[in-house]
Amino acid sequence: MRIAVDAMGGDRAPEEVVAGALQSLETPGHDLVLVGQPEALRRCMEGRKYPPERVEVRPADGVIGMGESPSASLKRRDTSIALAVQLVRDGEAEAVVSAGNSGAFMAHATLRLATIEGVERPAIAIVVPALPGPRVLLDAGANASCKPEHLVQFAQMGAVYARDVLRIRNPRVALMSIGEEASKGSGLTKAAHRLLSELRDELNFVGNVEGDTVFADVADVIVCDGFTGNVFLKTAEGTAQAMVDGLRAALTSSLRARIGAFLVRGALTRFRQLFDYATYGGALLLGVNGICIVGHGRSDARAIKAAVSVARQAVQTRVVEEIAASCRALQAAPVLPAADAIEADASTVGG
Amino acid sequence: MRIAVDAMGGDRAPEEVVAGALQSLETPGHDLVLVGQPEALRRCMEGRKYPPERVEVRPADGVIGMGESPSASLKRRDTSIALAVQLVRDGEAEAVVSAGNSGAFMAHATLRLATIEGVERPAIAIVVPALPGPRVLLDAGANASCKPEHLVQFAQMGAVYARDVLRIRNPRVALMSIGEEASKGSGLTKAAHRLLSELRDELNFVGNVEGDTVFADVADVIVCDGFTGNVFLKTAEGTAQAMVDGLRAALTSSLRARIGAFLVRGALTRFRQLFDYATYGGALLLGVNGICIVGHGRSDARAIKAAVSVARQAVQTRVVEEIAASCRALQAAPVLPAADAIEADASTVGG
Repeated sequence: MRIAVDAMGGDRAPEEVVAGALQSLETPGHDLVLVGQPEALRRCMEGRKYPPERVEVRPADGVIGMGESPSASLKRRDTSIALAVQLVRDGEAEAVVSAGNSGAFMAHATLRLATIEGVERPAIAIVVPALPGPRVLLDAGANASCKPEHLVQFAQMGAVYARDVLRIRNPRVALMSIGEEASKGSGLTKAAHRLLSELRDELNFVGNVEGDTVFADVADVIVCDGFTGNVFLKTAEGTAQAMVDGLRAALTSSLRARIGAFLVRGALTRFRQLFDYATYGGALLLGVNGICIVGHGRSDARAIKAAVSVARQAVQTRVVEEIAASCRALQAAPVLPAADAIEADASTVGG
Repeated sequence: MRIAVDAMGGDRAPEEVVAGALQSLETPGHDLVLVGQPEALRRCMEGRKYPPERVEVRPADGVIGMGESPSASLKRRDTSIALAVQLVRDGEAEAVVSAGNSGAFMAHATLRLATIEGVERPAIAIVVPALPGPRVLLDAGANASCKPEHLVQFAQMGAVYARDVLRIRNPRVALMSIGEEASKGSGLTKAAHRLLSELRDELNFVGNVEGDTVFADVADVIVCDGFTGNVFLKTAEGTAQAMVDGLRAALTSSLRARIGAFLVRGALTRFRQLFDYATYGGALLLGVNGICIVGHGRSDARAIKAAVSVARQAVQTRVVEEIAASCRALQAAPVLPAADAIEADASTVGG
């Protein structure tokens, strides 16, 4: 198994990206193709211990900036993202990891790898840490606006991911809304609720969840449009960070608290890791013909190592093939109700 | 000043509602009208210390259930919500507090009190705890779908609230989106961004914020549609609760951690209060001709007491009159660009 890594992508590239990628080689079973400016990469690799036969450097002179327009970036064929995606297209790598410009990465992946038959829009799937176990939420930001039938496809893909990667039997699928009742929500969620309800034989649809019940043990797959999913993701990150900051301030507010904090340090570290994006490594872009891992722009070595591990798992469980099979089955099932007729209408909560 | 309290509203009514309302009388300067079933209320009041001349019980036999349809509830005139709102309409009370069915409360408030001239849709304004100080976010759930010009009105109302109640000079207004660039987001946010940018003389518009930067010190007023705002609110609540649960588990995981936890207990309590909805009491329904405080359904006595305090503050700072004046000023300003022409279009992030 070969995994391509965009070594130039991310706020802390190439140093942390190269370091994390090489650390992933502590586990056997995969080789790396590091894509980027050869001299910069070689400097980062110097002095590090790794099995050289498992690492190839593929030169790419161009780098897509974090603020660059995704559509404009498509024209440049010499960038590390373009070449890393091309490796998957050409069958030279089974997966690609990038913590670079995520819009550009998604644009390249969608255009060069194409979507799986039956999938109109790829979606970013994130793993939400919760007890008793993690769950998957999609779309976390690939599509700012969605149609109801897109959410059905997200549900389909998310269920495969939950089953094969998270190993959850018969995963429960829920729709993110602002009330448990089918009558609450936006025009989009009401229409999607109707479609998902009609597919109960194919999907284990359990109804609506809200931003807080995502963390409760009521669903394994949560679907929403990319705007909502991105607000969820960023809000959860922001709240967790604000709480960690507040906790730090509280724990240093007095001598008594500082002594206590020293004693709980180990426990707090384990607790913090549960809510740390670096523990999860990256999100999967589901729906394209290839494994694409979208890393966090702030990724450090630990996050990149985790992202490579997510890529391995996705390749091993054959996520792309399983989604394709699942989409074929859904298309063979009773035809989807005509969603074109369902128009998003302005309406008030519970109105 | 007289404040009407829907004593039957909320999961823990009437006991906790009556207890919290009576506790608010520890502060001088307002009287209470408790609206609800007289016998139930009298039972809750028995044995409690309070100045009886400051409390009136107004009988209401009906109770609107938490799951009841808001529109159906409008037909029943004998409910505690209907009568409590009516007191404000009739000038018998300056404000009304309810932790009951929020959809029904909003429907009654909007219909019986009517919206302020120039405001098409009332919005729920919540106070977001953050450092160095709190900020206000609206709409947190009154309108599942919004037009761009609604968000402009929310900005207007939120700026008045931040200035008069939170005492922030020249409050910075931001739009919730999924990227800082004006080009990112949904059709709604892109159109609202254009409108807000053209009103820079009237509003201190600073651009887009994301779910995580809400907690950073970049804006004092954050506007969004009610679906997005509700996802933000619930996600922040759910994340905070999940972290508190995780923290509790971590702090009892070993003897060493338990001893440390004992030492940091006081610091943690202060920390937890910062993120506890009960500290803030309730959200304001802005845009109607009267002060309406929407309490959390799970409100306990402490939350109700805080909600009465929010009501007092809103009456004292004349929020309704100030919003009306601000709306008149905006309407006298250069006419809003024709927003009807701006249609929400399906588009991908950064596309």
